[in-house]
Amino acid sequence: MTINPASIFKDVEAIRKNAPLVHNITNYVVMNTTANALLAIGASPVMAHALPEVEDMAAIAGALVINIGTLSDAWIESMFKAAQKATSRNIPIVLDPVGVGATQYRTRTARELIRAAAPSIIRGNGSEIMALCEEGQTTRGVDSTSGSDQAVEAAQALSRDLNCVVCVTGAIDYIVSQKDMVQVKNGHPMMPRVTGLGCTATALCGAFAAVNPDYGRAAAHAMAVMGIAGEMAAKHAPGPGTLQVNFIDSLYRLSETDITERFKI
Amino acid sequence: MTINPASIFKDVEAIRKNAPLVHNITNYVVMNTTANALLAIGASPVMAHALPEVEDMAAIAGALVINIGTLSDAWIESMFKAAQKATSRNIPIVLDPVGVGATQYRTRTARELIRAAAPSIIRGNGSEIMALCEEGQTTRGVDSTSGSDQAVEAAQALSRDLNCVVCVTGAIDYIVSQKDMVQVKNGHPMMPRVTGLGCTATALCGAFAAVNPDYGRAAAHAMAVMGIAGEMAAKHAPGPGTLQVNFIDSLYRLSETDITERFKI
Amino acid sequence: MTINPASIFKDVEAIRKNAPLVHNITNYVVMNTTANALLAIGASPVMAHALPEVEDMAAIAGALVINIGTLSDAWIESMFKAAQKATSRNIPIVLDPVGVGATQYRTRTARELIRAAAPSIIRGNGSEIMALCEEGQTTRGVDSTSGSDQAVEAAQALSRDLNCVVCVTGAIDYIVSQKDMVQVKNGHPMMPRVTGLGCTATALCGAFAAVNPDYGRAAAHAMAVMGIAGEMAAKHAPGPGTLQVNFIDSLYRLSETDITERFKI
Repeated sequence: MTINPASIFKDVEAIRKNAPLVHNITNYVVMNTTANALLAIGASPVMAHALPEVEDMAAIAGALVINIGTLSDAWIESMFKAAQKATSRNIPIVLDPVGVGATQYRTRTARELIRAAAPSIIRGNGSEIMALCEEGQTTRGVDSTSGSDQAVEAAQALSRDLNCVVCVTGAIDYIVSQKDMVQVKNGHPMMPRVTGLGCTATALCGAFAAVNPDYGRAAAHAMAVMGIAGEMAAKHAPGPGTLQVNFIDSLYRLSETDITERFKI
Repeated sequence: MTINPASIFKDVEAIRKNAPLVHNITNYVVMNTTANALLAIGASPVMAHALPEVEDMAAIAGALVINIGTLSDAWIESMFKAAQKATSRNIPIVLDPVGVGATQYRTRTARELIRAAAPSIIRGNGSEIMALCEEGQTTRGVDSTSGSDQAVEAAQALSRDLNCVVCVTGAIDYIVSQKDMVQVKNGHPMMPRVTGLGCTATALCGAFAAVNPDYGRAAAHAMAVMGIAGEMAAKHAPGPGTLQVNFIDSLYRLSETDITERFKI
Repeated sequence: MTINPASIFKDVEAIRKNAPLVHNITNYVVMNTTANALLAIGASPVMAHALPEVEDMAAIAGALVINIGTLSDAWIESMFKAAQKATSRNIPIVLDPVGVGATQYRTRTARELIRAAAPSIIRGNGSEIMALCEEGQTTRGVDSTSGSDQAVEAAQALSRDLNCVVCVTGAIDYIVSQKDMVQVKNGHPMMPRVTGLGCTATALCGAFAAVNPDYGRAAAHAMAVMGIAGEMAAKHAPGPGTLQVNFIDSLYRLSETDITERFKI
């Protein structure tokens, strides 16, 4: 799999043109910022979590994004129901296993979710991806990192097992599919100081997967766009407050030239 | 009904002087941004949704704002209870039927709400207003638009039926009351790319209705302030991230001169 | 108790070095902004409220922050459970009794919480602190203020009774411990126009208490950092939208020189 600025921008244009509806069942912390990121790139976000409506919403969506960042039993039930609907419609499901490994509740829920309805794309940091596939792995909340080699191995195991794309994000992003792996080296060290940019990366995977049925490419394109927009945002950002604002502007303004100038693989 | 810069600014001054308490039962996505908008214009926002306290909160509020953007059964019960309290106290109720038509759950809930406790003001986009009053109407999530003529007709039907003010917002805002209609032409095309500015318009209706018992004027004034603040915000905004920040600053700084220079009807 | 720029910055450096995990059970309005403030100062925030996981999360945290701003029964149960775990581990508990006095539900809940598991630090505005300890006190939502003398007396009574630190914040912040009181005079009048900066002050108390076992100093340091970062943020902020963004940048960039130049006691 090779990705390049033209293939990335082609997907951005498709999102801007088609404004795919991305159904998010996500955490309270990032609802506003991921909705804004989806709007800025050109998609149509909707957040809906109630059991009586998740099927109806998944029935009109172009992608379903499930994020377990602020989990509770009622929401879990809705996640399963929405995922089943998405599976039956063959639309992409993107999973963000936030904080998996930090509590048994998250680990158990994420593992049950991936068994009940295989996601098209899973995106997490290294420790989350490792916790998702291994027993006895514990992480330190939501922003841990771990040895990238182990994480890539875990991603490969998950990818093989579930027949899905796994993104391990960090200073370098690894996009692992069943027979392939791409690295994306864009991004900025201040990005982890903004809450929920990982969740935003996951939400963007939903938008890209809604317009590109090659989910490996879709995920890699989304990661490149995240990193490039982050670099553009950091250029004039004295701190993470400004970075968050500029990041949305950068998604909105992103041109093929921006991608060509910055894309690093 | 005629509205003008002086009448608009008079309400702004009343909000700044009296800081009316606006009780919001609203969606997770916009809680932070609508609270900030209410604070910036000079009102006192409170968000409270628990069944055991919504009556107490509605009992001390100057207006109740109900927004169904991220609905669930427990919240619906609280919406009804708060609306009954607001009705008994004769304080304005403002309803935002977010995403009505996208799922049966939203359509049914919104229709039941307007029957149980007639709102003073309903604010939605064209497709939401049409879905609220017609059978068989479906929308595409939360940011759809539709033919404005049909939407205005739907607004007129709702307004007659419920004896309330209906705002249909879009590039042109239509404020429909039982015997009258005002158009407000302020705003900026980038505003729909910021999540929740519609919800903010609804919340501002609450603040204006809390200080102006003529709810038609209150709603029209709120829409003018939204549009004008949006134009001011867009002037130096490279994208929707900056627009969102500037918009709050503009609400805070809004002067009679700003309104006079920009008001378009 | 004396605090000074060197002691304040020592704690800031400890937070940046150790990145303490701060477990927040907080309100929907401020989840994003308090997570960003904690990240900007150098801590690791996690938001988790589900009954099946709050003990596991409190078991790995350096501090527990409980904020009752958008209360409901399920969350209350989790607050108690997390507080018990934190007590058993002897990690600091910080309580923000948002809106206490506005509804009986909040008053009862906050009073039961402080009896069940004594917090290390309570932070509120004057009317909240008075409502927390007196019968028959009512407040006007979440941003009321009251005579600071009465509030300080209430804080002293609470502090004696619960053997905890009580911060009464406003134009002047009073940090009251069992035998001592410190005033911090930093801050900016525009700060109350940003939603949730009080909640952010509480969250920062959690980060400081996680690295400084002298909770009186930890709270005073946190209040000084809040006020100083607020002043820095206001310097180039035309309104509260920009203030909120700049505030995060200021926390991130805060140097010992910034503190020395601005610290006012």
